[in-house]
Amino acid sequence: MLYGAIEAGGTKFVCAVSDENLDIKERVSIPTTVPEETMTAVFAFFDQHDVASIGVGSFGPIDVNKKSETYGYITSTPKLAWAHYNFLGALTERYDVPVAWTTDVNAAAYGELKKGAAVGKDSCLYITVGTGIGGGVVIDGKIINGYGHPEVGHILVRKHPEDTYGGACPYHGDCLEGVAAGPSLEQRHGIKGHELGAKHKAWDIEAYYLAQAIMSYTLILSPEMVVMGGGVMKQTQLFPLMRASFEKQMNGYVATPPLEDYIVPCGLGDNAGITGCLLLAIEEVN
Amino acid sequence: MLYGAIEAGGTKFVCAVSDENLDIKERVSIPTTVPEETMTAVFAFFDQHDVASIGVGSFGPIDVNKKSETYGYITSTPKLAWAHYNFLGALTERYDVPVAWTTDVNAAAYGELKKGAAVGKDSCLYITVGTGIGGGVVIDGKIINGYGHPEVGHILVRKHPEDTYGGACPYHGDCLEGVAAGPSLEQRHGIKGHELGAKHKAWDIEAYYLAQAIMSYTLILSPEMVVMGGGVMKQTQLFPLMRASFEKQMNGYVATPPLEDYIVPCGLGDNAGITGCLLLAIEEVN
Repeated sequence: MLYGAIEAGGTKFVCAVSDENLDIKERVSIPTTVPEETMTAVFAFFDQHDVASIGVGSFGPIDVNKKSETYGYITSTPKLAWAHYNFLGALTERYDVPVAWTTDVNAAAYGELKKGAAVGKDSCLYITVGTGIGGGVVIDGKIINGYGHPEVGHILVRKHPEDTYGGACPYHGDCLEGVAAGPSLEQRHGIKGHELGAKHKAWDIEAYYLAQAIMSYTLILSPEMVVMGGGVMKQTQLFPLMRASFEKQMNGYVATPPLEDYIVPCGLGDNAGITGCLLLAIEEVN
Repeated sequence: MLYGAIEAGGTKFVCAVSDENLDIKERVSIPTTVPEETMTAVFAFFDQHDVASIGVGSFGPIDVNKKSETYGYITSTPKLAWAHYNFLGALTERYDVPVAWTTDVNAAAYGELKKGAAVGKDSCLYITVGTGIGGGVVIDGKIINGYGHPEVGHILVRKHPEDTYGGACPYHGDCLEGVAAGPSLEQRHGIKGHELGAKHKAWDIEAYYLAQAIMSYTLILSPEMVVMGGGVMKQTQLFPLMRASFEKQMNGYVATPPLEDYIVPCGLGDNAGITGCLLLAIEEVN
């Protein structure tokens, strides 16, 4: 039996087909342009494979509310060609198989819980810090499901006392994503993040914001682990800085696992999302 | 069959016994003093009733992690006589029945979901704003369960531009609880909250903080409803102010139900907690 997966990101779609052991038979990467073009390539890939189900983790915001008339749509994305696109409908119209539908970051959280850094846990939060900040949440072994899906990158944060940068979020200005996603590093300091050098005070500011957010996530969700991925997290000097800042801001109020085991890098790297999508596809029919 | 419940609050314990339809047969209120005294009264109550199970919703922080050696304990509470008290152990030693164990606010959230304002939903957040700020979370019909339990009152918030009050939280100074729980109203304005009058600008500041917190809760949990109780929420003028401030701060980024149906007063009033405890007791053995 073969299973399909689509990790639909804002810059590229990764499509894959695997067996029930996640052994990937074929995989392809497709640029995210406009639905007509990108989905034509997606269909060309899956038309060649007889899959029992498909798991989709999509960039968003998306509608994950099964009670909603627009369940399965991409909703108010700034990528205008995809706004209000019936992604799930396009798939189920072409393929008569069950399709699991969630966000790219929820899929990554699920992948990390089952096969990555959080193996053995029942709950984890996955955060990606790249051109934006997003997060997925698994509690009691399941992706959380409420009115919509988490958008943890847009919580409001207190400004770092030395930070005068106004923030880049078109909705909220200096929300977390506005002051801590990749583009804010370049705009604040005038140099690209990866050229700043590991000792630059930019990382103290970055760690302060991320730790403040992790404090909120901890107080609200109480996950067993916070797994962090995305381009900015390749700056590994951030991990000790975030843990120290978290400890200072939380001030011992709630118990967490030891911080080296709590705030951790992702285990699957760039494969977290597609792994989660495959797992969701397999579980959809098993 | 009879079922027992203990809503263990910081000022009083409510104990009750009901049948499977939540028809309460007897109920008693006991002051929260020291464990020896309070628990003696609790035992005196339950010794008279042959209950099949007990549901406990306790003030906290408490240990709800079944993998922990101190599962069932009250942990680092500022009520020092109760710190590190093995509450669950004391109950199970005396009564050979299953005991459900969660926080008072989780129990209230569960009560509101099953019998109160959130009937028909699968998820809700319950927030109480009184001498402190706490919250309980139900997702997919279940109290969320991670490393610990939510402590949503202690997230850090941005200060209101006109607020110079330093905050009252012994751990975090001006976290949400520090600037928006009942005592902060009196300390900021020099008058008790309920004497301020409904038009006082204190309520704009209060609504700003609560709305900011609800924005974070929404972005992280995406519940179907936010149910609010506690003494401060008896100031019903806060509801329209909170909804307006939420709308302004969120700026349309994620979809929610219409705000009049999303940010709502509790449906069970002071009975939310004990109702939730009874439901948990009944489900423990059915």
